[in-house]
Amino acid sequence: MTFRRIAARAACSLALPLALSAAPAWGQRTAPPPAPPVDPKVAALRDAALKDDLAYAIIEGLTTEVGQRLAGTEAEARGRAWGAAKLKALGFSNVAIETYQMPVWVRGEETAEIVAPVPHRLHLAALGNSGSTGPKGLTAEVAVFPTYNDLAAAPDGSLTGKIAYVGNAMQRTQDGSGYGANGAARFVGPALAARKGAAAIVIRSIGTDHHRLPHTGTTNFAEGQAPIPAAALSVPDAELIERLATRGQPIRLRLLLTPQQTGMHESGNVIAEVPGTDPDAGIVLIGGHLDSWDLGTGAIDDASGLAITTAAAKRILDSGMRPRRTIRVVWFGAEEVGGPGGRDYARRHGGERHALAAESDFGADRVWRFETALPDSAAAVGARLGSALAPLGIVRGNGVAGDGADIAPIIRTGVAGVDLNQSGLDYFDVHHTADDVLDRVEPEALRQNVAAWTAMLAIVANAPEAIGPVVRPK
Amino acid sequence: MTFRRIAARAACSLALPLALSAAPAWGQRTAPPPAPPVDPKVAALRDAALKDDLAYAIIEGLTTEVGQRLAGTEAEARGRAWGAAKLKALGFSNVAIETYQMPVWVRGEETAEIVAPVPHRLHLAALGNSGSTGPKGLTAEVAVFPTYNDLAAAPDGSLTGKIAYVGNAMQRTQDGSGYGANGAARFVGPALAARKGAAAIVIRSIGTDHHRLPHTGTTNFAEGQAPIPAAALSVPDAELIERLATRGQPIRLRLLLTPQQTGMHESGNVIAEVPGTDPDAGIVLIGGHLDSWDLGTGAIDDASGLAITTAAAKRILDSGMRPRRTIRVVWFGAEEVGGPGGRDYARRHGGERHALAAESDFGADRVWRFETALPDSAAAVGARLGSALAPLGIVRGNGVAGDGADIAPIIRTGVAGVDLNQSGLDYFDVHHTADDVLDRVEPEALRQNVAAWTAMLAIVANAPEAIGPVVRPK
Repeated sequence: MTFRRIAARAACSLALPLALSAAPAWGQRTAPPPAPPVDPKVAALRDAALKDDLAYAIIEGLTTEVGQRLAGTEAEARGRAWGAAKLKALGFSNVAIETYQMPVWVRGEETAEIVAPVPHRLHLAALGNSGSTGPKGLTAEVAVFPTYNDLAAAPDGSLTGKIAYVGNAMQRTQDGSGYGANGAARFVGPALAARKGAAAIVIRSIGTDHHRLPHTGTTNFAEGQAPIPAAALSVPDAELIERLATRGQPIRLRLLLTPQQTGMHESGNVIAEVPGTDPDAGIVLIGGHLDSWDLGTGAIDDASGLAITTAAAKRILDSGMRPRRTIRVVWFGAEEVGGPGGRDYARRHGGERHALAAESDFGADRVWRFETALPDSAAAVGARLGSALAPLGIVRGNGVAGDGADIAPIIRTGVAGVDLNQSGLDYFDVHHTADDVLDRVEPEALRQNVAAWTAMLAIVANAPEAIGPVVRPK
Repeated sequence: MTFRRIAARAACSLALPLALSAAPAWGQRTAPPPAPPVDPKVAALRDAALKDDLAYAIIEGLTTEVGQRLAGTEAEARGRAWGAAKLKALGFSNVAIETYQMPVWVRGEETAEIVAPVPHRLHLAALGNSGSTGPKGLTAEVAVFPTYNDLAAAPDGSLTGKIAYVGNAMQRTQDGSGYGANGAARFVGPALAARKGAAAIVIRSIGTDHHRLPHTGTTNFAEGQAPIPAAALSVPDAELIERLATRGQPIRLRLLLTPQQTGMHESGNVIAEVPGTDPDAGIVLIGGHLDSWDLGTGAIDDASGLAITTAAAKRILDSGMRPRRTIRVVWFGAEEVGGPGGRDYARRHGGERHALAAESDFGADRVWRFETALPDSAAAVGARLGSALAPLGIVRGNGVAGDGADIAPIIRTGVAGVDLNQSGLDYFDVHHTADDVLDRVEPEALRQNVAAWTAMLAIVANAPEAIGPVVRPK
């Protein structure tokens, strides 16, 4: 995932579960309304999914037989071909690849070393859209800012000729909120440093691990602004700079980064369906993203999302019960680099009736919570989800569903949503690093995800209620 | 550490604790002999050491202000200067640097990629003494051997022109025995592959982690044998090769490794003392090694050993009780690359009376066990150690002390020993990788080490018993 929208929590016109919109549990004096029973067919599908092997096989295959899948490259194209073949082989209908053009940035050489007061080689990775130092590199004094806010407080022009260093205080959070809170150093820190005159910027990785593996990710420069070289240091390397800074001597850094913008190239989405019986009931759109960062093989970000949603849809396909609503699985392209895949999907398919959209793009750890964004007409759907998901250890939150960069353009048109939130406690140990490989996927947690998605699809795709548009609070 | 000798366990002339040489505990029918009381001064020193900050400060300083310390390089020389200044500042006596010449191998470029059946970039590190591919690299088919024994079974000449891949089944063990059992792939696998005609060899790192960080370490070619390019893949990269191998298509690897032998250079040991009152009672020799591998900053291997032993000796120095025996702290050079520091020490100082030698070179995790190698005359010393170390959670083993590559040449002359064994369960997650940095040191565990070493020194250096030579079982 690139950025996780933290849902607003204001009261709204959505159907919120009664128990949660009332007093907190410890003040509760009345019994909650009885939970609806779970349809035995839903329960059976859910429990069978706890033995799923397809999701792991998809991740294993994609990461082994294709590898990294940087958006807009031939590797991502091989991923599309692999995905379309796999979806056809699994028996999905209407499998198609839909392409679009997008600008492509590619990594070059990247090395860095502290040259004073003490030589140290550093581990770092250029950020997407980083400028280049040129092949001879750049040596300059480092201006150390513990956080993004400290950088923001630096006077304009005060960084002229310097390399800005920006730290952060990222902590583990189950809901992933640490990313939004600390990510500014990466998302907009380079643009800000450039505006203040910096020759380059290195940030402490937006990550919670302590390994010598930097976390890459996209940064954004302003329209017309010349990109400066911008990279993330591994957390231990960042801490080394901070320790050296406490000793008071100037720190000089030599930086070599030679990434390039390579112009416009083809990317695309892979689409497949489990056809429904009632075209008027609307499509249930699910999926994740096929592209990955180039450092790892994108096992958790986001082969897992493709695998979980595809394996769940395949279980509905194989159940013998043709669903009321068409389930459309999309393997989106180019999520990591600005989301042209999601925009292309909305452009092509925004005119079709979508009942609900849900995306899996937060790794492969266990689902611990679900959120909904449902119209009043479908409030009972939320209650049935609660009953069916509870045995998997999943509780209902009090936020508003709609997470996922790829479905965001469709969600914005008022499409209902369900989020199945995976634990983010360990996600940012690995996110956007070379460690995002098959080893990071825990098969039992992955199966719990497939079971949750299978139950959700069985309920949502077959709900007799109308799942019409919703208005989300701002 | 380079290689941990697994002590023989045969019955012998050494003083073994009675309870352990008798029946196993669950068959015990008689009360064990009463443990001797702990000298209150020893207990007070031990408990005060649980608040130690010096050991951490030494590790922090050495890894920050010096960094990596590859043997025989200017970085190791800066480490010696740093160490001598630190030991003088701490008030140790007779601080000296003793130098010697040694051959020095240095890392060059190192990249690798699978070019067929699917492109994948790999993370790898050359092994010490690896040959070079030359600047143009080498591309060849991979012959996959799951273990060293499989490689050993390959017919001579069967690997001509190929790159051998050798896996392993390294598991976590508290006593570190997994290293000896699986290390052959690194220690002698390259020499064996070369003899069978291989153009190069890559091994699965001898490590227990699953990060994209390879584990380097020395390999040894035979006298007169031309070294082939030899490198360790990170564990996930090794597993990728094994997964691709199951798919049956030939795997082709492109390898670029340009290390060099740079001839003879200066290395050295740093020596310091807490002078004793009785020169005839013999020296207590303690220490660790100053040099490190070049990928990390040698925080656990072995700044921790220097720090633990130095901090413990400093506590004796500051205790106001001048010890009976001189405590000699040595920061050995060049342990990682064959141990010329230990040999130089033995050559210079082998004629001096050594009562006992003990080395700390297994990281910074908690001490869980101690071993002794004591003459009958000093059996009571072992019992007193048992009483004093028990409150730190340390039990007595039934092996024979003498671990440590640097003290091995002195130990071989019949010097008594005590081993304070640290847990090896996590050690090989980090050993010889870029992750061997300050972050890996857990301050509370480090303090427990200092407390154990302080108690051990207080007992051993002041023991009224003669601690004469011992004969170790073969």
